[in-house]
Amino acid sequence: MELTEKVIVDMLYKLGSYGGDPQDGITRFLYSEAWVDAQQYLKEEMESAGFIAEFDEIGNLFGRVEGSKYPDETILSGSHVDTVANAGHYDGQLGIVTAFLAIKYLKEKYGQPLRNLEVVSMAEEEGSRFPYAFWGSKNIVGTAKKEEVLGIKAFDDGVAFEEAMRGAGFDFRDESKGPRKDIKAFVEMHNEQGNVLEQEKKSVGVVHSIVGQRRFTIELTGQANHAGTTPMGLRKDAVFTASKIIAEVIAESKRIGDPLVCTFGKIEVTPNVVNVVPGKVLLTLDTRHTDKAALVSFTEYVEKTMNRIAEEDGIGISIDMWMDEDPVPMDENIVALIEKSCKEHGLNYKMMHSGAGHDSQVLAPYYPTAMLFVPSIDGISHNPKEYTEPADLLEGAKALAAALYELAYKE
Amino acid sequence: MELTEKVIVDMLYKLGSYGGDPQDGITRFLYSEAWVDAQQYLKEEMESAGFIAEFDEIGNLFGRVEGSKYPDETILSGSHVDTVANAGHYDGQLGIVTAFLAIKYLKEKYGQPLRNLEVVSMAEEEGSRFPYAFWGSKNIVGTAKKEEVLGIKAFDDGVAFEEAMRGAGFDFRDESKGPRKDIKAFVEMHNEQGNVLEQEKKSVGVVHSIVGQRRFTIELTGQANHAGTTPMGLRKDAVFTASKIIAEVIAESKRIGDPLVCTFGKIEVTPNVVNVVPGKVLLTLDTRHTDKAALVSFTEYVEKTMNRIAEEDGIGISIDMWMDEDPVPMDENIVALIEKSCKEHGLNYKMMHSGAGHDSQVLAPYYPTAMLFVPSIDGISHNPKEYTEPADLLEGAKALAAALYELAYKE
Repeated sequence: MELTEKVIVDMLYKLGSYGGDPQDGITRFLYSEAWVDAQQYLKEEMESAGFIAEFDEIGNLFGRVEGSKYPDETILSGSHVDTVANAGHYDGQLGIVTAFLAIKYLKEKYGQPLRNLEVVSMAEEEGSRFPYAFWGSKNIVGTAKKEEVLGIKAFDDGVAFEEAMRGAGFDFRDESKGPRKDIKAFVEMHNEQGNVLEQEKKSVGVVHSIVGQRRFTIELTGQANHAGTTPMGLRKDAVFTASKIIAEVIAESKRIGDPLVCTFGKIEVTPNVVNVVPGKVLLTLDTRHTDKAALVSFTEYVEKTMNRIAEEDGIGISIDMWMDEDPVPMDENIVALIEKSCKEHGLNYKMMHSGAGHDSQVLAPYYPTAMLFVPSIDGISHNPKEYTEPADLLEGAKALAAALYELAYKE
Repeated sequence: MELTEKVIVDMLYKLGSYGGDPQDGITRFLYSEAWVDAQQYLKEEMESAGFIAEFDEIGNLFGRVEGSKYPDETILSGSHVDTVANAGHYDGQLGIVTAFLAIKYLKEKYGQPLRNLEVVSMAEEEGSRFPYAFWGSKNIVGTAKKEEVLGIKAFDDGVAFEEAMRGAGFDFRDESKGPRKDIKAFVEMHNEQGNVLEQEKKSVGVVHSIVGQRRFTIELTGQANHAGTTPMGLRKDAVFTASKIIAEVIAESKRIGDPLVCTFGKIEVTPNVVNVVPGKVLLTLDTRHTDKAALVSFTEYVEKTMNRIAEEDGIGISIDMWMDEDPVPMDENIVALIEKSCKEHGLNYKMMHSGAGHDSQVLAPYYPTAMLFVPSIDGISHNPKEYTEPADLLEGAKALAAALYELAYKE
């Protein structure tokens, strides 16, 4: 088998038929019938290709080609098989399909590797059926906790997590086992879900880090008053204060620029009627950076700025930081190795960071980890319109195959 | 009878018992049982005081003291008897109670006036039961149109306007009659619904004009994108553009100052989630001024500013002006007469404009009209917490009585 655009696209669409609808959307929630069927399809594909295919306790599917020289060392690649509601054909699926095809290609072309080569189809990453994300990867590294999922129920049909899991034929993993010990490297291919590669006309992104995130809710309290009878000088207009904060903080974020991003995504005004001076505003702030010190320093600046503007306006303010996740650097050696092999193969690549979270951030503290991106047209993701050009899919698969070759076939 | 704090407050609370609840709120919608009872109570009070009390066709209640010399000339005073949902004790009620008590006081003290003195309890002003406001005053001047109310239904119980009206025992007024011809002056007392008098420690406001209003809905269209993977430089963030618009326009409004007011009261963000760059924002803008040219010039500036900022940011914009009401000046002669009598009586008054709409703006194009305000503590209105100090109520009633005396008892 050669790596071609057609084999990649065909397998993406075959896998996408499990949970797929006629409008190109895919909904494949953890432990659903479509999810079970998709994993079963993948298991059969792996077995047909001569891989040893096995589920772990919770439903992560692994397909292994055994190594000749280092049977205790595994090079792992893959991504998650679950989707959000009405997803596209790339998020998650792509990392499984390209890992499977790259390993199959390497096995056919170069025979048995020195180290084990494994594709993984991880059970869950999105947190879209249950209020719990990264269930798959957290069970590989042993940080998933039974007690954290025992009380949770599905957003859609209210079924209990454990009931759904057992219904699909799976069970909890023994928490005393800790992380899998044999994994020497993990490489995940994913669609970018942003528009940087497209804008810069690059086919492949070599990811050197995943951003840290801090998220806040800010409450501004002024005074609701009649919009006609309250002179400008006697107002405590929470929307005016919110606007000054947003305008100043976003302008500063733009000035600082990459890799910082900063978003006021949600605004809720009270009472939110045309003829009342707004007495209260709730804002959310999502800010991300690849460097922890820079993230901390920026959020300190933001808090100071918000407090200053609110004070100037005589507006009450409370700031609640409810998410604080550190950046996750990828493994320097693997990133260097991938970059080198991209160069050697003449691939059109770019070094970049990931602005979104991925399974790789769960695995990276335990195993040398790296990621590859391919472009997302218009940055569209979590949507049936999600799209990557077949030529870029092939470039990505070649980059992944080259990396896995270096990791599994070389001393 | 003397005009005292107690007689005013007692009657306000007696009238407020119709539609009142134990938490001091009043809900007295047009043609409701509470409304019928309130009008009936007022009719009896008028008759007890020796007034000739009569309803017009649609339910406006008039109480007349006949003039000795000019039986075709009527000096009218009053306000509206309907309330918003969960209203306080002043809005509307106060103008009826003070007009009734002032006329009763004048009649007892000075006997028969030269001109007819009439108190009016107008049927409806708020537009809170049906999507139609100023039904009472518009039926006095003959601009209420049967066809405009024939299709409308109550917000609360869906009853048709005509059914509610006939249920309360009223009918349409013959539109060919035109405006009442005998009214030579109208003076309306109202609570300020703002905080200017309170801030300036004044008891009475003499209103020289009612603001004009322009209201807009502005739609800003950017592009919704992933908040993590979309670099600041590649965003079309509609919230950022909205913020710059609001911050700049409100700052300019504050610089211009009284009597201009400008409010962005409502903001609706799409999709309004923490981790998505906002693709769309709807804003409302409410702006008012006592001078039409100034209002037009300011809204032209606002439109220019909004278009400029949106263009700079590459954000689509559409601006819809859906309300355009001209300012209504009060009658110069009556305003001067009221100011003079306030001075003569040593009242603690202030010349001011009204930032809210009132029945007076409907009557002013037909009859020489003026208004008096008393303070609203904290500017609170349309709320059970609406409050005016009894001492200020008395000052206001005295100012009204003095004005009515000048208008009805002097040649």
